[in-house]
Amino acid sequence: MTRVRIDLFSSLDGCTSAGDGPENPMGEDWGPITAAYVATRTMKERVFGDTSGAGTTGIDDAYATAFFTGIGAEIMGAAMFGLHTFPDDPDWKGWWGDEPPFGFPVFVLTSTAPRPDIAMQGGTTFRFRDGRIEDVLAEASEAAGGLDIRVGGGIRTARAFLRAGLVDDLHVAIAPVVLDRGHRVWEDLRGLEQTHRMTTEVAESGTLHVTFTR
Amino acid sequence: MTRVRIDLFSSLDGCTSAGDGPENPMGEDWGPITAAYVATRTMKERVFGDTSGAGTTGIDDAYATAFFTGIGAEIMGAAMFGLHTFPDDPDWKGWWGDEPPFGFPVFVLTSTAPRPDIAMQGGTTFRFRDGRIEDVLAEASEAAGGLDIRVGGGIRTARAFLRAGLVDDLHVAIAPVVLDRGHRVWEDLRGLEQTHRMTTEVAESGTLHVTFTR
Repeated sequence: MTRVRIDLFSSLDGCTSAGDGPENPMGEDWGPITAAYVATRTMKERVFGDTSGAGTTGIDDAYATAFFTGIGAEIMGAAMFGLHTFPDDPDWKGWWGDEPPFGFPVFVLTSTAPRPDIAMQGGTTFRFRDGRIEDVLAEASEAAGGLDIRVGGGIRTARAFLRAGLVDDLHVAIAPVVLDRGHRVWEDLRGLEQTHRMTTEVAESGTLHVTFTR
Repeated sequence: MTRVRIDLFSSLDGCTSAGDGPENPMGEDWGPITAAYVATRTMKERVFGDTSGAGTTGIDDAYATAFFTGIGAEIMGAAMFGLHTFPDDPDWKGWWGDEPPFGFPVFVLTSTAPRPDIAMQGGTTFRFRDGRIEDVLAEASEAAGGLDIRVGGGIRTARAFLRAGLVDDLHVAIAPVVLDRGHRVWEDLRGLEQTHRMTTEVAESGTLHVTFTR
C-alpha cells in the first residue's frame, strides 16, 4: 500500500530555515538544523558520493536510511525546485545536476504555466503540474508503482499536504538549537497528535526525532 | 552558590497556554501541556495534598521533585500572581489559598503601585516590587539564604530574565501536542544553546525534557 511520507527539519522552537536568494537558497540557518543529518554515513554516501564509510551510524543514520528507502515518486513545491529563484530561466533543471539523486518521477507543483517534462540521467523525470494537490497525489500514486510517495518540501508544500489530511508518515528531525526566525514548521497543524500516533527519540547528536504515523 | 532557575511548559511547537480571564486564568491549553506533570506522584502530593502514593514515578516525577528542591525564594510576574486578572481587589492574595505551597519569600513584579507585603501561613511572604529585574533578583538572592531562586513565570517574566542573561538553569517540559496558539516560549531566545549546555530526555509519557545549564 502506497503511503505518503514527509521528512522535515526543525529547530527546537519549531522554525525551519528561510531561503535567502540564489546564492543561498536554503538560508543560513539550514546548516545548523541539518548538521547532524549531513554528518551521517548514509547522507555522506547518498548525497555527497562519499563511499569511504565515513559518517555517523547511530540513530540519526537510521532515520537517514529510512528517508531513502521505498520511495517511488516525489512531489515538491516550485520554490524547492528553484522556479521562484530562477523564474526567467526556461531551461532550469533544478539544483541537483545532470543526475539528480531521485531515480523516480518528481512532480513539481507550479501555479505558473507548466513546463514540458524533463528526463534526467539516472531515472529522474521532472513533471510540472498546476492542478489540485489531491489530483497530483493521485497521479504520483500511479507513478510510484506501489512504492511510497515523498512530499519533499518546502515547508509550505509540506504543510498544505498535512493540513489536507493527505500524509501518513511525518518525521521531524528537531535540532538542539533555538532559531527564533524562519518558517514555522507546525503552523496550522494544531491537534496533529490526535489524528496520528506520535513517537519521540533522542539521537546521540542531541537531535530529537519525532514521528507522526496513521 | 545561589542559582537562578526556571521551569516552563511548552507544546511541541513551542507554545504555552495563554490565560483566558478569571474563570480560566491558565487557559484551556494548560491542561494538555501539563497533564504528564500533574500525573506525577510528587505533584499529587505537593500541590494536591494526595499522600496516598498515587501518581507516576518515572522521568517526569524526577523533574517534578527537582522543581521543589533547594528553592529559597521565588520571583513571579504580576499576571501570574493575579494582579492583571483582579486589578481592583486591594486584598488579592494570589491563587494559592491561605497556605501557599511556597514556604519562602515570593517577589511579585508589578509596574503599578506596590502593595504592602503579605505574610501567609506556612512561611510564604508576598513582596511587591516595581524595580529593575536585576535589583529584584539581588534582593531575592539575599532572601534565599544560599538556596536557589526560582523565576516562576509567567512566560513573559521568564523570557525577560532569560534575555537578560540572568538564568543559570532552564528546564522546559515539552508535551507531545501541537497547539499552534498561545504565547511563544522561545521568542527572542535565539542562540540560547550557545550560552548554555543543553540536554534532552524523553519521559515514559512522551514528554520531552530539555534543560539548558550554564
